[in-house]
Amino acid sequence: MAAEIVNPRSDSSGSRGASGTTGHEGTDEPFDPAFALHRGGKMAVQATVPVRDKDDLSLAYTPGVAKVCSAIAEQPELVHDYTWKSNVVAVVTDGTAVLGLGDIGPEASLPVMEGKAILFKQFGGVDAVPIALATTDVDEIIDTVVRLAPSFGGVNLEDISAPRCFEIERRLQERLDIPVFHDDQHGTAVVTLAALRNAARLTGRTLGDLRAVISGAGAAGVAIAKFLLEAGLGDVAVADRKGVVSRDRDDLTPVKRELAELTNKAGLSGSLESALAGADVFIGVSGGTVPEPAVASMAPNSFVFAMANPNPEVHPDIAHKYAAVVATGRSDYPNQINNVLAFPGIFAGALQVRASRITEGMKIAAADALADVVGEALSADYVIPSPFDERVAPAVTAAVAAAARAEGVARR
Amino acid sequence: MAAEIVNPRSDSSGSRGASGTTGHEGTDEPFDPAFALHRGGKMAVQATVPVRDKDDLSLAYTPGVAKVCSAIAEQPELVHDYTWKSNVVAVVTDGTAVLGLGDIGPEASLPVMEGKAILFKQFGGVDAVPIALATTDVDEIIDTVVRLAPSFGGVNLEDISAPRCFEIERRLQERLDIPVFHDDQHGTAVVTLAALRNAARLTGRTLGDLRAVISGAGAAGVAIAKFLLEAGLGDVAVADRKGVVSRDRDDLTPVKRELAELTNKAGLSGSLESALAGADVFIGVSGGTVPEPAVASMAPNSFVFAMANPNPEVHPDIAHKYAAVVATGRSDYPNQINNVLAFPGIFAGALQVRASRITEGMKIAAADALADVVGEALSADYVIPSPFDERVAPAVTAAVAAAARAEGVARR
Repeated sequence: MAAEIVNPRSDSSGSRGASGTTGHEGTDEPFDPAFALHRGGKMAVQATVPVRDKDDLSLAYTPGVAKVCSAIAEQPELVHDYTWKSNVVAVVTDGTAVLGLGDIGPEASLPVMEGKAILFKQFGGVDAVPIALATTDVDEIIDTVVRLAPSFGGVNLEDISAPRCFEIERRLQERLDIPVFHDDQHGTAVVTLAALRNAARLTGRTLGDLRAVISGAGAAGVAIAKFLLEAGLGDVAVADRKGVVSRDRDDLTPVKRELAELTNKAGLSGSLESALAGADVFIGVSGGTVPEPAVASMAPNSFVFAMANPNPEVHPDIAHKYAAVVATGRSDYPNQINNVLAFPGIFAGALQVRASRITEGMKIAAADALADVVGEALSADYVIPSPFDERVAPAVTAAVAAAARAEGVARR
Repeated sequence: MAAEIVNPRSDSSGSRGASGTTGHEGTDEPFDPAFALHRGGKMAVQATVPVRDKDDLSLAYTPGVAKVCSAIAEQPELVHDYTWKSNVVAVVTDGTAVLGLGDIGPEASLPVMEGKAILFKQFGGVDAVPIALATTDVDEIIDTVVRLAPSFGGVNLEDISAPRCFEIERRLQERLDIPVFHDDQHGTAVVTLAALRNAARLTGRTLGDLRAVISGAGAAGVAIAKFLLEAGLGDVAVADRKGVVSRDRDDLTPVKRELAELTNKAGLSGSLESALAGADVFIGVSGGTVPEPAVASMAPNSFVFAMANPNPEVHPDIAHKYAAVVATGRSDYPNQINNVLAFPGIFAGALQVRASRITEGMKIAAADALADVVGEALSADYVIPSPFDERVAPAVTAAVAAAARAEGVARR
């Protein structure tokens, strides 16, 4: 949603109130449990082998470690067997599109990257390290991540603004032989597809029957549009602030130009509202709002996925008046579209088989596995599992590993 | 000792025997407990806050984390209060001078960097992350570490070959406001000074009374020479493969040229052996060997610190025939000069007070604290504490924090 974000350097000061100041003065914790929780950070490193005495030391460090180093020097693939590279992901950002806050810089982005890292561990058993870079230059970001790659089994790009995020991901994927995955794009797309599959199942339709309209042409909107078409959706139109992205527009960036070619078979143009008339699916990743009449104009049994946080594009109470299935990005309503349902298992599966990349097939397998966890319990208020459903990560992990093998990108 | 190292790409295959091959075939563990211990790596990440339910998630991640990010965006110094930056060090290498193995590349260096990281945690309570870089270009290494700096509270440079390591450390210290410390240089120097102080105490001498000869002009040799002079040693001469580094030599690198100006007040020239005649202290960081007659020619009550691993420059049994105090780098003889006595407490102390750098005064304070741990138990076989003496890290940490405050580099 990066492209739709307002820069908080202009709007955050007022919204935060006294807490920051209190923290600054260091007199005591700001009056907010989030600050108390974050004191000292949210993660740590631990040894997984004993270092109690000199015998332990002589195996885990010198002289014992030298044999292991020499073995890897001779047979580089052994690095996956004898180091944590096999299970560690770099969570890389430049701090330019952090949550709804925008370009707040690398230091200020660290609490989010730490949060992401502990979610990787909690939900996928994947070790992750926050890497917030002191550069926003595309070439410098790419060169830096390439130089870091020997130490990591995968790279999760996070909160990097669009359209820069597209080029950074593409060029890193070309240069590296480990998975490079921009979660703001693909994690959101995978969970959206899973929810959409179950919504279609619930209402007796196939993906091919559905015409979707996406509000927001940032990282998430672009990735969702491409992924839903990849998965077989009937038609997808994407709207940015100026309306539907269509071939007849002359104000499109290269990324939106490509989108105009790929999407909008129906040849719609004009406003988001007009595009919603008769549409089966609304997907909001914009942070804007959609007037009730536009929701009312959608086809019968429509699906409204209003995923903006904290304020959905359509309030769930309004959406329920017209839609068969309503989903949001919020944890306090049913059907939360939450990336944490996808990225831990996707990386866990890719690392398990030492995949060289994460393919479209692996992402579709992840979405299918996620949808299948719901199973017989499927209902309008339960098209997607809870992030705390312990079946989720194992199912996604297994499906992604199997798909990686099927697609020939697995190395074990 | 980097400069003295033989490249293992020519000698490792023979020395490692079948273990590597077995590992390669992956049929089962090589016949060596070190490989079994290293399977899957030696470290992991852990969350230090709960992520059990959606309430936890809403504090540790969105929406709660946004307040913390905004606070740091407004007051950057808060990053030390609310992220793990306050306690995490990057262990950075380019894999060019790993242990006694030499230039084995970044992947093969990872087991050593992981070992270093778990020693940081075990002995200093400091979180550390292995960063093995896919470049050996000095400018690229510096630019990369500068871009990583927002995510870390300090940088431990490790196993980077001399003389490159000197320029990399100096330029990083100029560009960063967090501690940058090349342990192969300064860790060794600090522990050597501590042992030397106690050896002098034991034999009723002051540092000013002592003339030392150092064998080896790599990272450790150069740093030890400069640090011992800084600490007040009477005279220090350094010998490389071609003999004593002296002003009259025309084959010196810029680093050794500077060394020739700083050291060797006595104006010695010629062989290491000749320089040892009448010397009070021998410090071996070369991996070479010193003939017994040269040891015999040293002054009465001499100190022999033969620190090469696994083969000391002078075997302890020979050294004991002539020297009052004998130390080695080995854990199976008394008086082991082991960097782990210094670097965990040095970084723990620097991080505790958010020091902007690690000064000479902080290193001298670390050496003094280390020497003082021995206290009344001082004897010829006990001039330096055991790495497993639990008093060591707290004493070094406290002394380094106090020195940082005294020298005005502490930020809290």
